[in-house]
Amino acid sequence: MIKIEDIKDPSFIKNLNNKELKQLAKDIRTFLIENISKTGGHLSSNLGIVELTIAMFYVFDPENDKFIYDVGHQSYVHKILTGRAKDFKTLRQFNGLSGYINKDESKYDIWESGHSSTSISAAAGMIVANKENANPSRAVVVIGDSSISNGIAFEGLNFLGSLKEENPIIIINDNKMGISKSVGAMTRVFSRMRGTKAWRRFKRICNIIFPKFITNWFHQIKRGLKGYLQSDNIFEDMGFDYYGPIDGNDIKSVIRNFERVKQSREPVVIHLITKKGCGYPYAEDDDIGNFHGVGPFCVENGKPLAKNDDGLTSYSQIVANKILDSRKKEDFFVITPAMKQGACLDLFASLYPKSFYDVGISEEHAAVMAAGIALSNKKVVLLMYSTFAQRAYDQFLNDIARRGLSVIIGIDRAGVVGEDGATHQGIYDVAMFNSMPNFTICMGRNGKECMGLFSYALKHNGPIVVRYPKGRSKYNTLDLNYEITNPTWDILRKGNKAIVISYGTILNRIEKTIEENNLDVCLINARFIRPIDEKMLLELFKMNKNILIIEECVNVGTLLANILDFASKESFNKKIKGYGISKDTIIPHGNIDVVLDNYGFSKADILKEIVDIYEN
Amino acid sequence: MIKIEDIKDPSFIKNLNNKELKQLAKDIRTFLIENISKTGGHLSSNLGIVELTIAMFYVFDPENDKFIYDVGHQSYVHKILTGRAKDFKTLRQFNGLSGYINKDESKYDIWESGHSSTSISAAAGMIVANKENANPSRAVVVIGDSSISNGIAFEGLNFLGSLKEENPIIIINDNKMGISKSVGAMTRVFSRMRGTKAWRRFKRICNIIFPKFITNWFHQIKRGLKGYLQSDNIFEDMGFDYYGPIDGNDIKSVIRNFERVKQSREPVVIHLITKKGCGYPYAEDDDIGNFHGVGPFCVENGKPLAKNDDGLTSYSQIVANKILDSRKKEDFFVITPAMKQGACLDLFASLYPKSFYDVGISEEHAAVMAAGIALSNKKVVLLMYSTFAQRAYDQFLNDIARRGLSVIIGIDRAGVVGEDGATHQGIYDVAMFNSMPNFTICMGRNGKECMGLFSYALKHNGPIVVRYPKGRSKYNTLDLNYEITNPTWDILRKGNKAIVISYGTILNRIEKTIEENNLDVCLINARFIRPIDEKMLLELFKMNKNILIIEECVNVGTLLANILDFASKESFNKKIKGYGISKDTIIPHGNIDVVLDNYGFSKADILKEIVDIYEN
Repeated sequence: MIKIEDIKDPSFIKNLNNKELKQLAKDIRTFLIENISKTGGHLSSNLGIVELTIAMFYVFDPENDKFIYDVGHQSYVHKILTGRAKDFKTLRQFNGLSGYINKDESKYDIWESGHSSTSISAAAGMIVANKENANPSRAVVVIGDSSISNGIAFEGLNFLGSLKEENPIIIINDNKMGISKSVGAMTRVFSRMRGTKAWRRFKRICNIIFPKFITNWFHQIKRGLKGYLQSDNIFEDMGFDYYGPIDGNDIKSVIRNFERVKQSREPVVIHLITKKGCGYPYAEDDDIGNFHGVGPFCVENGKPLAKNDDGLTSYSQIVANKILDSRKKEDFFVITPAMKQGACLDLFASLYPKSFYDVGISEEHAAVMAAGIALSNKKVVLLMYSTFAQRAYDQFLNDIARRGLSVIIGIDRAGVVGEDGATHQGIYDVAMFNSMPNFTICMGRNGKECMGLFSYALKHNGPIVVRYPKGRSKYNTLDLNYEITNPTWDILRKGNKAIVISYGTILNRIEKTIEENNLDVCLINARFIRPIDEKMLLELFKMNKNILIIEECVNVGTLLANILDFASKESFNKKIKGYGISKDTIIPHGNIDVVLDNYGFSKADILKEIVDIYEN
Repeated sequence: MIKIEDIKDPSFIKNLNNKELKQLAKDIRTFLIENISKTGGHLSSNLGIVELTIAMFYVFDPENDKFIYDVGHQSYVHKILTGRAKDFKTLRQFNGLSGYINKDESKYDIWESGHSSTSISAAAGMIVANKENANPSRAVVVIGDSSISNGIAFEGLNFLGSLKEENPIIIINDNKMGISKSVGAMTRVFSRMRGTKAWRRFKRICNIIFPKFITNWFHQIKRGLKGYLQSDNIFEDMGFDYYGPIDGNDIKSVIRNFERVKQSREPVVIHLITKKGCGYPYAEDDDIGNFHGVGPFCVENGKPLAKNDDGLTSYSQIVANKILDSRKKEDFFVITPAMKQGACLDLFASLYPKSFYDVGISEEHAAVMAAGIALSNKKVVLLMYSTFAQRAYDQFLNDIARRGLSVIIGIDRAGVVGEDGATHQGIYDVAMFNSMPNFTICMGRNGKECMGLFSYALKHNGPIVVRYPKGRSKYNTLDLNYEITNPTWDILRKGNKAIVISYGTILNRIEKTIEENNLDVCLINARFIRPIDEKMLLELFKMNKNILIIEECVNVGTLLANILDFASKESFNKKIKGYGISKDTIIPHGNIDVVLDNYGFSKADILKEIVDIYEN
């Protein structure tokens, strides 16, 4: 049997017999548990998808067909089978193996999908583009049950279901969970579908046994009886031939069914039920998603290694604590699109079930629903990651900002995001919100200030964005009462030779750079990106020194623009220089500090920029 | 009988008998045809929805219930019944009646919806916010069959269908068309549902006649027979009680069914089949959507009044012609989300059916599908309105720009948009695309240049946006061959006292202002917003004069930012002033020229700005 690390390409799979395939699955599981226990990464979804992925390579043609994974974090087995096992030691590290599908890594990586639910539309494009080819490739899509409930997946199904002459295969990897727990009516649809096997088998057998005119006649009777109406499920409703449900961890059964759908000349949905975390008891028993994205852990007991004993708390947790504390004092709703666990909202949800809605992977819906609540004169807090907030741009603009509605948007994972990499960077949201009407935008430099800004936001009239990063900060329960009552800036250091303005946690790097180099620089914490603190700016303008504005984001239309605009009105004549992430830069994965060091925010970089505007 | 113009509020409706209700419907139709034939506006959808709207006011409580119209252009009857008939003379004119739901106009206008498919999510928010009230209001949503196929509507259904204890009513106004023709698998779903009446009637009668235990038992048998599986349609699948299909232009039947669903204690979908254009033969027979949004027309023959004999052609038509001409020479795909008619693509679609995809109201899907095509090394042109492009922000960023894919995005209705007003302004897209990686962004000042830029785009490697406005321009078939081969700017006027840089059709106003006032100003056509023409800018910097940058858009992170960035690198020391639309400004509806005059782009405004930087 081949050693996992020695796999060069997937061609060997086609020669394996059933027993060998089973052994391969077992070996991959052992490999995954062992490696991810050291590096951290996405464990549960990949353990569930082992047989499914092997069967794809066994049945379909990886050299010509398009294997498209919806949300690339379920692609570890694909990476192993396409010769990248040896790189797993570097998983999600800077210059190491990406945790997602990545075209630069392998020719087998077709569709880079950090954000969910795009796979079906991508397949549609590839099918349409290839259909006139002599040897048209087949699109084989793998999508989870919770990704299906996002709007774009539905739009994709709506399109693909109407392409009757094509034969894409949509494999639904149904592990009944999604990222945390699937929500909404589609869970009902799925749970109903899970019970339909007997009937389907009967129907399929009829189709095989009887000549077509008899099954047609049988169909007529059924139609007659029922008023020629009822189709079988949402996918058949939409024009797909539906196969399932199938035990997705039984490799023999998966292969047999893949072989069958391979013959189809219509769009097919094949519904596999897989066990998330399959083969690792701690992950199998994990109901809330702890093993979805996991840090290094002890294989024997499933407990996190290196319990974080630095005394720091994640910003997500700090915000969750603050929101919970505030909810005790006043009434408001909390909405999150599938980020209940990521945003540490389990406790809030259990204490205030009527005020809490996890709407699943439905960012657009979440934003409009928040607008509906605000229109009813109720407070509402919407918590989402910066990168996923991008999916609700139009709703933020049209339905919240244009109307000036009082929605508090907590933007988690703002700034450089670390191990998730290019598709997850939180570096565009400032530009996004700052070009829309009526938004207040703020970001604290530490946990205490972050809580203070949430206090401010809960009293604020109008739409407001509170940003916070992926990192960790000191957490003190006394700080829960810290209030920021006005949208003002803060002077962190006084100095005479230059002015540096920034916001967020990058301020700590800047402050250290100034200290370590004994620079005579005035350092401002612009915790309100909008509105800017015009009073303080006027004072600063009086110093008549060059200004450097440092932003840990794509700084096109951001704080820089707001200050330049004001400076132009006030005819400030010294240099104002912006420093941020160039809009053409794609920032890869890796430890946040390492990435910052390598992408323009090392202390040396910062020093260089300050020296550049420094006037002796 | 009450005169339409004399209606003050909808209270009178509850006292009408069936005959009077029919007369009211007839009078409203006459009123609509007469008025819209003079002002222009949305005719067909409103003629179809007359009985539906009257019945809503008859059965439900407009004082407490929330009437939510998906896409507000189907709200004319609502406007009439809530006392605004007398204002129809000013429909869609500056300071006149809005063509959409508008909270400032009436307390009965709950949800301002310029963009489709948000209604269900908005209702979800209102239901959740109100459910603890003593007298909770009911949400009554009216949504068209084509709006349902957009992703956000599906996300909304997914959420609402899971709220079993609430009782929102979703009225599907199924006119089998949407804005032009519905597309995709959902049309199949609807056409199937339309045939289910007999069966449903039988089922409902059973439920009425037989005691519950018998119908339950009957249900058991059905489940036994079929493997307890098959639900009836996509809405029942998702947890809604489904009623229909019902003749939506038969007021008696609509009222009877509304009365019935009013009693429901579960989420309800009620499916009404209405005739678009009902009561006006020319609109009834209109299969392609000419009477969807219509200009003034002759009531007798349905023909447009004031045939545009100014010799000008709409930019949409010019672009369509250019694309058609180019397609004759080279192979590429064209995708549009429900804008086949608006983008004048009917001819292209009929000549190149295999290269053309109208994907319905599915902007996100359209963008990802385009990415899938580009990834397959085929050219693809994506045509959409600026305001609707906002719905695909994340897909533009993640799936097209991040990857540097060669997708040509034609942005129609860029800039101030005229009669559609606040929710449709094309003033955000420059900021949007300019903050993303790899985009080239350009806009011509007239039809010829617009065609030249499309020539450029078709040869360009990487993502590119070609913007064009709603207006009209000269069209010359010779100009189809006009090519722009480099991303350079153009000097429109030479001058010595100041430099003005702008792009698009607003240049014409600027040029006239300069001419009429004999200003000694250098005027630059920055037809490439990105990349900027650095070579020309360096020449301009050498003039050492103040620079004014005028943009007909929210100018946060736009051309201004690109020039400021370069000027900062080149240490240009004169003043650079940006002039555009303030990000907090909400621009209302009205004739484009009138709106421009009133929102900062009158010749006097432009003159003032130029004088401000002018150096004598």
